[in-house]
Amino acid sequence: MTLRVTVWNEARHEKKNPEVQKLYPNGMHTVIADALKAQGFEVGTATLDEPEHGLTEEVLANTDVLTWWGHLAHGDVEDAIVERVHKRVLEGMGLIVLHSAHFSKIFKKLMGTSCDLKWREANDNERIWVVDPSHPIAEGLGECIEIEKEEMYGEHFDIPAPDTLVFVSWFKGGEIFRSGCCYQRGRGKIFYFRPGHETYPTYYNPEVQRVIGNAVKWAGLPAGTKLTYGNRKPIEKLD
Amino acid sequence: MTLRVTVWNEARHEKKNPEVQKLYPNGMHTVIADALKAQGFEVGTATLDEPEHGLTEEVLANTDVLTWWGHLAHGDVEDAIVERVHKRVLEGMGLIVLHSAHFSKIFKKLMGTSCDLKWREANDNERIWVVDPSHPIAEGLGECIEIEKEEMYGEHFDIPAPDTLVFVSWFKGGEIFRSGCCYQRGRGKIFYFRPGHETYPTYYNPEVQRVIGNAVKWAGLPAGTKLTYGNRKPIEKLD
Amino acid sequence: MTLRVTVWNEARHEKKNPEVQKLYPNGMHTVIADALKAQGFEVGTATLDEPEHGLTEEVLANTDVLTWWGHLAHGDVEDAIVERVHKRVLEGMGLIVLHSAHFSKIFKKLMGTSCDLKWREANDNERIWVVDPSHPIAEGLGECIEIEKEEMYGEHFDIPAPDTLVFVSWFKGGEIFRSGCCYQRGRGKIFYFRPGHETYPTYYNPEVQRVIGNAVKWAGLPAGTKLTYGNRKPIEKLD
Amino acid sequence: MTLRVTVWNEARHEKKNPEVQKLYPNGMHTVIADALKAQGFEVGTATLDEPEHGLTEEVLANTDVLTWWGHLAHGDVEDAIVERVHKRVLEGMGLIVLHSAHFSKIFKKLMGTSCDLKWREANDNERIWVVDPSHPIAEGLGECIEIEKEEMYGEHFDIPAPDTLVFVSWFKGGEIFRSGCCYQRGRGKIFYFRPGHETYPTYYNPEVQRVIGNAVKWAGLPAGTKLTYGNRKPIEKLD
Repeated sequence: MTLRVTVWNEARHEKKNPEVQKLYPNGMHTVIADALKAQGFEVGTATLDEPEHGLTEEVLANTDVLTWWGHLAHGDVEDAIVERVHKRVLEGMGLIVLHSAHFSKIFKKLMGTSCDLKWREANDNERIWVVDPSHPIAEGLGECIEIEKEEMYGEHFDIPAPDTLVFVSWFKGGEIFRSGCCYQRGRGKIFYFRPGHETYPTYYNPEVQRVIGNAVKWAGLPAGTKLTYGNRKPIEKLD
Repeated sequence: MTLRVTVWNEARHEKKNPEVQKLYPNGMHTVIADALKAQGFEVGTATLDEPEHGLTEEVLANTDVLTWWGHLAHGDVEDAIVERVHKRVLEGMGLIVLHSAHFSKIFKKLMGTSCDLKWREANDNERIWVVDPSHPIAEGLGECIEIEKEEMYGEHFDIPAPDTLVFVSWFKGGEIFRSGCCYQRGRGKIFYFRPGHETYPTYYNPEVQRVIGNAVKWAGLPAGTKLTYGNRKPIEKLD
Repeated sequence: MTLRVTVWNEARHEKKNPEVQKLYPNGMHTVIADALKAQGFEVGTATLDEPEHGLTEEVLANTDVLTWWGHLAHGDVEDAIVERVHKRVLEGMGLIVLHSAHFSKIFKKLMGTSCDLKWREANDNERIWVVDPSHPIAEGLGECIEIEKEEMYGEHFDIPAPDTLVFVSWFKGGEIFRSGCCYQRGRGKIFYFRPGHETYPTYYNPEVQRVIGNAVKWAGLPAGTKLTYGNRKPIEKLD
Repeated sequence: MTLRVTVWNEARHEKKNPEVQKLYPNGMHTVIADALKAQGFEVGTATLDEPEHGLTEEVLANTDVLTWWGHLAHGDVEDAIVERVHKRVLEGMGLIVLHSAHFSKIFKKLMGTSCDLKWREANDNERIWVVDPSHPIAEGLGECIEIEKEEMYGEHFDIPAPDTLVFVSWFKGGEIFRSGCCYQRGRGKIFYFRPGHETYPTYYNPEVQRVIGNAVKWAGLPAGTKLTYGNRKPIEKLD
């Protein structure tokens, strides 16, 4: 079964910042979407300034995995849409949270922590090391991914300890960061992936694209049956 | 250093329900508080109907570990107080969440999930089995705690997988439940402990009292230093 | 790509015990193998009394996932073969450990603990509850699997806390047990699954068969690239 | 109650290598032992070349927490002594595994993996970042520990995912490493702590000493009661 992905983007930097426009003339979402299409997924896009941010009930009902990039305008995302996405994640939709979306409403709501971190825009080199080579998100990678220039994110990253930690980043300036973090919440699977500052061509990097594709496959894995909650009659004994 | 505990109680059942009044004439909080005092902690209490629910900035600043029981009136807890408690947990205050407080605003906010479950009021027997005997919260216990009559809680319990699972309950009616769950969030430690329905004398049980006392010691363990977040200057190199 | 499974069985009870012979006239391995073939896997079998226990270098090199059942004769498994299987697991072969194989040499070696537990042969009812409904091993199941009669296994089960706990069993006699446990070791994935006493028809149960098939799919998921260890030259700087 | 610590050292480098002799004239164990005495613990030492490696039944029976440093001569540690230590850890003795003891028999036996890693002796700078600031092993530290010169250890480190990951190291040469790893096995607690190459004065570093002391306190925390295993009579029903 072909997994259906919706690539969500705030898509504001691309309208305001010539440097970002040049890198991503049609928005970061189109680059990510094209990379996922090339890996065989069925892909749509949605952006902040569309009605309901492009995330109608119908769109979400037909999404197996949602990817999320935001930065400038987390506050502009309506709470009702955040609730809708949250509900779908607990029902089983996968969610891939990219870079500065660590501060998105949906990620903070799912984590329960501040999701704060340290950062520096100074063209640091980044090496993303695989610490869990058994994980399908690491499939096909070498021992680390080299990224020539990226924004630095440093610890302490105020998240729950990941259910599975797949990557840890090294930055030339002296910091490390838990940069590939898996979580299971309700019937849904969530993956946070660190790289992707808007002023760098990170989403054109084939290994970064591969990780996002691997994460779609993992987050889209089928899960258990529909759950029931609430008051429950005594269970009849077997014998 | 003597740990300072605040025992918080919704304290509404005790005012309305004669059965609960008879069991807990001065409120469940006084029974829990007395049990903790007897274990050498410095203990105060706070209840929903006090101003600021008894949880002023000053009270929280002087609390190492907060215990929380609520059931009927989760919705009456003001969001501003929930924010205040949340902030203190991330700063390092311990939090012990009791029984029906699985549905409290503060627990749901910290977990990021629905925290829903199955339940049945039918005088089930409960056996609380120790699955992590290395954990200090299990100190001094036998292999399981027997509780003659309790409300049943059953899986699926919609929580993040605990950072450490200490207890799993067996119920005569056919269910199991992850009933002792540790979480670390920010600098704070959180323990969810299942038993404690208001119509049973559970908080008089010496082993239940011991678990709450052990959990206070664990949640009150000192943690790392104060954290800093945000923009960061390049780190000078060592050589 | 079709996953290649080798179903390993001690296959001694089947030769000695008329009750087991009647249930599993061609050995438990053939019942498990047939169930996996029906789910689309490529399946071979191997047993203790074959040369090299049927687990030659060639067989293992062509096995994506190995299932293991043993009970009476753990001590008869040669250490050299255990080393061979261990090496293959760390390289990436999946391993599914069934029932009394909790005491097999390979499982104890991978866990590092005694793997001891409590047990009782008394026709207990077992209910295997799903506690992680997001997990692909739970796919297609209801909220619990009912098994009419099984041997009881009780906690404390002396294993490392699972990387992911998928199932917890309830037994009528009063015990609970962590009965579906995932581990990631090196590049390999390991799943322990509790039910399967030789005197019950457990491996004919379609839900038990489904769990084993789901576990094969999970343990056979592709992983990261080949790893290197040892002395390492200074890494040339990027700039 | 004062915790009783035994500091174990291979103590061979100190006899052969003038550089190490100069740094640690009475052996690394005396420096570690003195640092722990100064923190209020009751401390003894034991070394490889003593009878039974200094780890008699009596010594272990009176040890709450054992620290272990080895490098050259892992193979000279007798298997019977390894079994004895393993048994005591599962019974509840804490174990702190230092630096090159990642390859010790006892650590490999407890982990079940190869425990292999990358390494380089090239005077790398190391920064040991706190990733779990809620953990008592991080108590009193700043956000990272700076070590001017150390041997590099790099990922992939072939260990089970830690039950709790407390520290991650950054190395100037381009690597990261999970350098503070907690495990719970049976009733025992285990902490692996990376720094401590014999040709550097690492064990004189007050922050390194503090971490080892904090780890002793954590690994020495009281645990659950003595466990029973094996055949079990039907449990009489409560009602």
